[in-house]
Amino acid sequence: MRPSGRAADEMRHVVLEPDVSKHAEGSCLARFGDTHVLCTASIDEGVPGFMRGSGRGWVTAEYGMLPRATHTRGAREAARGRQGGRTLEIQRLIGRSLRAVTNLQGFGERSIQIDCDVIQADGGTRTAAITGAYVALYQAFDFMRIAKAIQQIPLTDSVAAVSCGLVNGEPVLDLDYEEDSSAQADANFVLTGKGQIVEVQATAESEPFDRATFDNLLTLAERGVAELTQAQHAAIQGG
Amino acid sequence: MRPSGRAADEMRHVVLEPDVSKHAEGSCLARFGDTHVLCTASIDEGVPGFMRGSGRGWVTAEYGMLPRATHTRGAREAARGRQGGRTLEIQRLIGRSLRAVTNLQGFGERSIQIDCDVIQADGGTRTAAITGAYVALYQAFDFMRIAKAIQQIPLTDSVAAVSCGLVNGEPVLDLDYEEDSSAQADANFVLTGKGQIVEVQATAESEPFDRATFDNLLTLAERGVAELTQAQHAAIQGG
Amino acid sequence: MRPSGRAADEMRHVVLEPDVSKHAEGSCLARFGDTHVLCTASIDEGVPGFMRGSGRGWVTAEYGMLPRATHTRGAREAARGRQGGRTLEIQRLIGRSLRAVTNLQGFGERSIQIDCDVIQADGGTRTAAITGAYVALYQAFDFMRIAKAIQQIPLTDSVAAVSCGLVNGEPVLDLDYEEDSSAQADANFVLTGKGQIVEVQATAESEPFDRATFDNLLTLAERGVAELTQAQHAAIQGG
Amino acid sequence: MRPSGRAADEMRHVVLEPDVSKHAEGSCLARFGDTHVLCTASIDEGVPGFMRGSGRGWVTAEYGMLPRATHTRGAREAARGRQGGRTLEIQRLIGRSLRAVTNLQGFGERSIQIDCDVIQADGGTRTAAITGAYVALYQAFDFMRIAKAIQQIPLTDSVAAVSCGLVNGEPVLDLDYEEDSSAQADANFVLTGKGQIVEVQATAESEPFDRATFDNLLTLAERGVAELTQAQHAAIQGG
Amino acid sequence: MRPSGRAADEMRHVVLEPDVSKHAEGSCLARFGDTHVLCTASIDEGVPGFMRGSGRGWVTAEYGMLPRATHTRGAREAARGRQGGRTLEIQRLIGRSLRAVTNLQGFGERSIQIDCDVIQADGGTRTAAITGAYVALYQAFDFMRIAKAIQQIPLTDSVAAVSCGLVNGEPVLDLDYEEDSSAQADANFVLTGKGQIVEVQATAESEPFDRATFDNLLTLAERGVAELTQAQHAAIQGG
Amino acid sequence: MRPSGRAADEMRHVVLEPDVSKHAEGSCLARFGDTHVLCTASIDEGVPGFMRGSGRGWVTAEYGMLPRATHTRGAREAARGRQGGRTLEIQRLIGRSLRAVTNLQGFGERSIQIDCDVIQADGGTRTAAITGAYVALYQAFDFMRIAKAIQQIPLTDSVAAVSCGLVNGEPVLDLDYEEDSSAQADANFVLTGKGQIVEVQATAESEPFDRATFDNLLTLAERGVAELTQAQHAAIQGG
Repeated sequence: MRPSGRAADEMRHVVLEPDVSKHAEGSCLARFGDTHVLCTASIDEGVPGFMRGSGRGWVTAEYGMLPRATHTRGAREAARGRQGGRTLEIQRLIGRSLRAVTNLQGFGERSIQIDCDVIQADGGTRTAAITGAYVALYQAFDFMRIAKAIQQIPLTDSVAAVSCGLVNGEPVLDLDYEEDSSAQADANFVLTGKGQIVEVQATAESEPFDRATFDNLLTLAERGVAELTQAQHAAIQGG
Repeated sequence: MRPSGRAADEMRHVVLEPDVSKHAEGSCLARFGDTHVLCTASIDEGVPGFMRGSGRGWVTAEYGMLPRATHTRGAREAARGRQGGRTLEIQRLIGRSLRAVTNLQGFGERSIQIDCDVIQADGGTRTAAITGAYVALYQAFDFMRIAKAIQQIPLTDSVAAVSCGLVNGEPVLDLDYEEDSSAQADANFVLTGKGQIVEVQATAESEPFDRATFDNLLTLAERGVAELTQAQHAAIQGG
Repeated sequence: MRPSGRAADEMRHVVLEPDVSKHAEGSCLARFGDTHVLCTASIDEGVPGFMRGSGRGWVTAEYGMLPRATHTRGAREAARGRQGGRTLEIQRLIGRSLRAVTNLQGFGERSIQIDCDVIQADGGTRTAAITGAYVALYQAFDFMRIAKAIQQIPLTDSVAAVSCGLVNGEPVLDLDYEEDSSAQADANFVLTGKGQIVEVQATAESEPFDRATFDNLLTLAERGVAELTQAQHAAIQGG
Repeated sequence: MRPSGRAADEMRHVVLEPDVSKHAEGSCLARFGDTHVLCTASIDEGVPGFMRGSGRGWVTAEYGMLPRATHTRGAREAARGRQGGRTLEIQRLIGRSLRAVTNLQGFGERSIQIDCDVIQADGGTRTAAITGAYVALYQAFDFMRIAKAIQQIPLTDSVAAVSCGLVNGEPVLDLDYEEDSSAQADANFVLTGKGQIVEVQATAESEPFDRATFDNLLTLAERGVAELTQAQHAAIQGG
Repeated sequence: MRPSGRAADEMRHVVLEPDVSKHAEGSCLARFGDTHVLCTASIDEGVPGFMRGSGRGWVTAEYGMLPRATHTRGAREAARGRQGGRTLEIQRLIGRSLRAVTNLQGFGERSIQIDCDVIQADGGTRTAAITGAYVALYQAFDFMRIAKAIQQIPLTDSVAAVSCGLVNGEPVLDLDYEEDSSAQADANFVLTGKGQIVEVQATAESEPFDRATFDNLLTLAERGVAELTQAQHAAIQGG
Repeated sequence: MRPSGRAADEMRHVVLEPDVSKHAEGSCLARFGDTHVLCTASIDEGVPGFMRGSGRGWVTAEYGMLPRATHTRGAREAARGRQGGRTLEIQRLIGRSLRAVTNLQGFGERSIQIDCDVIQADGGTRTAAITGAYVALYQAFDFMRIAKAIQQIPLTDSVAAVSCGLVNGEPVLDLDYEEDSSAQADANFVLTGKGQIVEVQATAESEPFDRATFDNLLTLAERGVAELTQAQHAAIQGG
């Protein structure tokens, strides 16, 4: 029995609320239970120097967490004067995940900057961030389409992410903070709407695990992402 | 006529929503129209080194703004590697304002860390931050009182803030972004519930102004803070 | 009775010594009693990127304090690797104050960099800095006028600053360090030669104060700035 | 046919040279073809603050690359003033991988600092680093055993790593730089000597891939790590 | 003929003005012609961590230059966020030079922090800094002696410094900025009052030079330091 | 008798191994006994901004030390976020030394970046670095000559460096770490193949020394550099 009372293959209550920002071209507040991540997409004319003249656009991401998003307050990264390794790792992951489903040739030499800021954390912030960021990115492209800057939305598939882990020896889907803290293994899967793999990050927390366990985690993730894909579809339709 | 259709002495719609954070001991989402600031108060045992053994507590504040809180995206301070002068100035102001109404002898050698994070900006973020931070601080003290850590809430008065400015030659209350951008003078007033002055910051944006103008701005501020004080009282009662 | 024996409305001995730097286009050593601030103005062809092509010039300021300018040595900001919040706040104030009396259209796309460095501190360093910086700025413009780069000096008024405070319950003018340390309220006023307000920063140090007190402080400031304006006039005439 | 002429499941020539440092308690120069990584293990009495009094030791790692280890010179991280996201990500991975096979209770409150410095790079630097770091760590524990600081070596298994990828549509083992640059998918597997999974990092570079492809990559990795495990065993025996 | 009209072995006009700071325990304004360096010595109880319990004191130095001390304005190191290599090199030199004539056993576990700040530069700032810093250090020890913290001044000799160089093929003493800019070789000599060598830094600017040239430069330096030693003696006597 | 059994004027075993890097245009592993420094030279089209249009090239250097190159591990400069004063001082010295024998007019507007990384340290790392860097620089120029980018190698002489010191009252050549730690004086000499002086850095470690001692150290250095010059010649011939 999981602390939250959920079944092993049951996601938390997921809400993807699009269009929450007055200013951003695309935005989504992604809630996986008590984990709340605000995702915005900002369009900028021009690309970084190394891409100029290529005719291609760029999608990149930054990630942050409010200091008291967590159980105990964490230091503010701006005050410490640098982003930690975990932050850099997550924002690189978000950027790669979105670019894997984006046709960079399809929107000219423009940059889309994704910002994922964790307003409240209860485990799985990076997976909520990727899932919400996709909705914000879609919205930003839709903004460009409506403004006639592009003819069609340059996305080849949708992308979403979920965590799975081995808790008390059992594979479970979508860990909250309590489970995450005691998991023997922890894996984040980024999959497309069609079920293809974009990124896998699996880590043995306390002791190594076998290949069969890994397979079970991946199977759970496929189920979770299918549900998230539906929620993304609904958010975009209603946006 | 103001762009928003408000009268010269009319505040934006103000909502102070207490208890919005799952984790923080005190919290308040302060909305002044489209300006939304999330304020949390975190209690920490112990005080900074220079105060150890004094028997007194400490209240301090940090301020931040999400990159796309604004009309155009601003650089993330954590990524730039330092907080800008404006950020430091504002967070120092918030801390001083709260300490001016706090009895530091009244809660032992503990620290209360206030975090004010601008989720969405439309002018007046520092005044919304101070106004909401007071509610979060009150809640944190109430948390301590309920936990029997203190007997009574060590606040000598309430504190709130509002901006006033000279726009098109007219003194107006509670400037939004559009007014702020074109103001000839801009002033932030931090006042107590009893109407005393805690802090005044007045700046001639384009050209110097006379003493009578300053007096008019202060009179407007007194009216605005009276309204904010009522909203704070209601938020705390309902908290 | 004040520690220095001065009357409540009496400034310290003020000396504005122009032309003290072998290299700078404009310079002034401003002494308010034992507070000594070296102000230089450096002319640079060109303006920051965001102003290029505007036809306008720019005036900006930096502020620093020698480590042992103070009673006890402070850390060197260059060694710590960043300027503190107080430093950034003061240098922003100096820059705004000077720009408020400068016609930026009047000297082409050039930058004037003001440096205010506190050689010795005894309270009121920011007000001495602004007062001396005006003289250095005037000199730099005069240098340009003599070099035929401009026809007339693009200043619309003079600007000077003084601190006032509530010490032992009495409003007093031009606080030295000893008074500043024990003041109940502390205010810095930046006023023009014609008596207009450029900037007000008033802070309740220990407890909030009322509007009548504020009015008294402002009246004192007007008297002090009148004296400083005369000293600036004399320094420039003799320069 | 691979650029190097290797078969799809063929590792580069691997040399693990132990005991290469005059000063370090443990060391190993790991060569995977033209990728050369110098790994040292330094024993330090004491543990980081958050672990003091726990009776447990700590193993941590840092990673670096000489500026001209690569085809074109990269900026020196010390000169840039910070470690990049890739560096932080890799050093976190190395530390986690080693801790997964270390019994932290087994060597008292001591720290072992692993340094992995890439002397020359030709793809797969993180996998060579982990593989060599295990040997250096073993040596450092052996140093402690010989010095009678511990009775037995607190390692529960060996650990090694290898990269696999999809190149020209074919799954291949142990990518060199040329293959890495053109791979459709790229995965790093950290496995124990017994074949358990410690860490998986798989990334779709250009387009998402399916589950069967992932399975093929993992099978290749198992074969590669078996070979690396033998090389580690030989290096330690001869050490 | 030198640009300044001086003979090859002639120092600039040297003035060592002691006791110029209201706050510092020791101070000296050292002027070598138009090069003006303010040197202060600050006494601090306690020593850095690595010296605690040793019974020995410590002397260390920091060096800085006001941005417009030079012909063209240099960037403020505090604003750039770090001290440059030249600054670090000079302050290390000043510290070593003073420690070479200080008996660290002779004043308990106290630190003396020397600050050398260049108010105006015209070549030879590091040599003026060392020469003035010795006077400030002497004064600080004298302050301790008068306060009965020590019985005698723990200095084994005096120390002073001068630059020499090869200008237009001729060895000359005490280069000003104009000579320094065109010198073929440039050397700084730190010598004691008794004529012993503390530090030599000689550099070929444009082309290597021979041993005889070096000998000539050293002979000039001995003459210059003898003069500086007299000036130090006079400053201390009059202090 | 020296700890190593060497005669006072005897160098350690010196090996200059050229062409050790797969990627760099020039490289040399310089070994002075147990001090091993990897030197690479990287050619870059273009020069720093301040030299553009001058028709001249540039040679610059960076220096680093692996954390466990030393007896006890030192902090990684990249992780600390800045290069220390010693590092900056050494890399400035290397750059100056090489430029003193380079004809900057002779290879167009190109930059050569030297990297000297200490793989293992046992005293004299800066002198080994300079000596090896010359070989790497020569090789890089030879690479350009073979590629027909230049007609002849723009070096006016060779350059090498050695340390000398006063140990137990005796002048000795090429100090290892043990001698360096106990030396009364320590000097680094950078000399050309023809015996001219490029740079002298002499420091009294514990007490000042006389001119005759300095002369003895220089004479030893001349002998040592003659030997190093031969080794450089041999390395280049064989390269």
